[in-house]
Amino acid sequence: MKDSEYMELALMLAKNGLGWTAPNPMVGAVLVKDGEIIGQGWHEKCGEPHAERNALANCKKSPQGATLYVTLEPCCHQGRQPPCVDAILEAGIRRVVVGSADPNPLVAGKGIRILREHGIEVTEHMLEEECDRLNEVFFHYIQTKRPFVVMKYAMTMDGKIATYTGASKWITSETARAHVQEQRHKYTAIMVGVGTVLADNPMLNCRMEGGKNPIRIICDTHLRTPLDTQIVATAKEIPTILATCCADREKQEAYLAAGCQILQVNEKNGHVDLQELMQKLGEQEIDSILIEGGGTLHWTALEEGIVQKVQAYIAPKLFGGRTAKTPIEGQGVATPAEAFYLKNSKIIPLGEDFLIESEVSRDVHGNC
Amino acid sequence: MKDSEYMELALMLAKNGLGWTAPNPMVGAVLVKDGEIIGQGWHEKCGEPHAERNALANCKKSPQGATLYVTLEPCCHQGRQPPCVDAILEAGIRRVVVGSADPNPLVAGKGIRILREHGIEVTEHMLEEECDRLNEVFFHYIQTKRPFVVMKYAMTMDGKIATYTGASKWITSETARAHVQEQRHKYTAIMVGVGTVLADNPMLNCRMEGGKNPIRIICDTHLRTPLDTQIVATAKEIPTILATCCADREKQEAYLAAGCQILQVNEKNGHVDLQELMQKLGEQEIDSILIEGGGTLHWTALEEGIVQKVQAYIAPKLFGGRTAKTPIEGQGVATPAEAFYLKNSKIIPLGEDFLIESEVSRDVHGNC
Repeated sequence: MKDSEYMELALMLAKNGLGWTAPNPMVGAVLVKDGEIIGQGWHEKCGEPHAERNALANCKKSPQGATLYVTLEPCCHQGRQPPCVDAILEAGIRRVVVGSADPNPLVAGKGIRILREHGIEVTEHMLEEECDRLNEVFFHYIQTKRPFVVMKYAMTMDGKIATYTGASKWITSETARAHVQEQRHKYTAIMVGVGTVLADNPMLNCRMEGGKNPIRIICDTHLRTPLDTQIVATAKEIPTILATCCADREKQEAYLAAGCQILQVNEKNGHVDLQELMQKLGEQEIDSILIEGGGTLHWTALEEGIVQKVQAYIAPKLFGGRTAKTPIEGQGVATPAEAFYLKNSKIIPLGEDFLIESEVSRDVHGNC
Repeated sequence: MKDSEYMELALMLAKNGLGWTAPNPMVGAVLVKDGEIIGQGWHEKCGEPHAERNALANCKKSPQGATLYVTLEPCCHQGRQPPCVDAILEAGIRRVVVGSADPNPLVAGKGIRILREHGIEVTEHMLEEECDRLNEVFFHYIQTKRPFVVMKYAMTMDGKIATYTGASKWITSETARAHVQEQRHKYTAIMVGVGTVLADNPMLNCRMEGGKNPIRIICDTHLRTPLDTQIVATAKEIPTILATCCADREKQEAYLAAGCQILQVNEKNGHVDLQELMQKLGEQEIDSILIEGGGTLHWTALEEGIVQKVQAYIAPKLFGGRTAKTPIEGQGVATPAEAFYLKNSKIIPLGEDFLIESEVSRDVHGNC
């Protein structure tokens, strides 16, 4: 097997951590000695050992003289776990093949330098693009200290997220809806506006088997979320954050008693200041958010420059309707030249539907 | 070479007729003798010889004993041209391989029967699906006597065909816009509502090199098209039809003098009766129409059940805007279950944009 094939395997192992490692990256590691795979591991969960240590722990032979394939540069600082570089040196590894460079300023090439200083041969940039893509959330979060934000919506082929009566169940097929549940497992939090709560009384949980519920965030400027909604009723089981500008302690108290967290932020243009909110959520180690909002929240999020990625699920059907809701509303841009541009679009067929996943390439505030 | 490979070649030849054969089908023919291609031809233009006669005329050897590959069942009736079956018999062809069966009730298997009665070996259904697809317009038109209607629009990834100010130049990139010009060449006519004429003063011509201008049809219920628009000004060069409910002879006279044709139809729900219009356009041998309307015309066309195909060009950008126009407006359906369903969607990447081409699978009036 070639280096790239071992790295491919390490990547596959890393993906086992999907949804569980936040705010840590997903990392996979493979140990090879004399052409034989002698150890494998991945970072399973934040707070638990890193991939390298797991691979070493699972070794069926002595790792002395082996090659380590690892999707991300080994860490050299004491965090929640002891530095992996130490473990590599102790194990007598001869060569290390690395995928992504660690963007964490506390690591930043230092891990590799230490290894080399100890006479270990290091090969960098192996399948780097794939390794980087795997951890787009971590890379964004570690560099900006703010959550990686994905804006998700399901629309018809004529751009409607509901009929003119407001009905939207269902636009896409089961396959696409199952894919959405995977996203709720994958990302740390889910965010909607209070309008969505008032209209749909949703649970915003993850209904994927073996999945993890995302932290629920409601943008509720004036604290209008009814106390008898499903979300408030289950706030003791599923972490729930109300982001609000309302400073009324008495009003807040009822939500606090129900188990909600209140995150008070300033008002900006009549709504919750999303930049400030992102900063506060980042401080709480929320590394990623799936926005499943209506058109108003989507527009504000886009305008405020907090969105990194757009997931447009498109169903092969037409609703029509001059007044039917569309995925992004608000004021909108005045001219096509002012549009928000998307790049690196990928089309993923999902049953009869399509998912077009793109990165936001223009950020009016220049901060993504 | 195998039968299917010769038919593949015949299909390629047939496509040379794209945009020129209406209301006839595109047909290609290949003559093979002793494993050698001795003649090729296609139907070049309505009124000119059929593919089979062209292939025979271009033969470099005697076609006696040859095999003829033809994408559509040879005709056996006298139309604008003498029957091809006669030519095949006269030429002493030994075997005929056919793609599509002719849906024309005047032919309908008769051509093949006559050939067999004269001792010619006939193989049917060779690459039938591809051959049928090539002539979806012809098949529809010959069976319904009404034009095959394609609804085309260009929208952003959030379903907008213009910004909230009405600006729409441009949504898609040059590659996608060049593709639209090919469609204007391919289809016989182009149709818009008077609203588009008033807003954009378009030419609606074909700007593809070597392309053919489509016949321009304006749905203008109350005859509001300004006489000084580009379309009226060029009506003597490019056939132009005003479909109207306005019976005012005096008002009509000015358009007639400018070279427009007036097609008076009944009013239905405040607009031109599109079913009646389709019937009248079919009588004029207009076999296909590209509707490049705004949302109102699109909704009416969909509701009236005259649309066979939808071409959604999607640009990777976002406009937002609660009041920005969307591709299909009007009243719309009330519930998702009442949606117009699309089927057999194909995604065609066009530069940075996508074209999703689908067939309309529900027709509220059951007549397509």
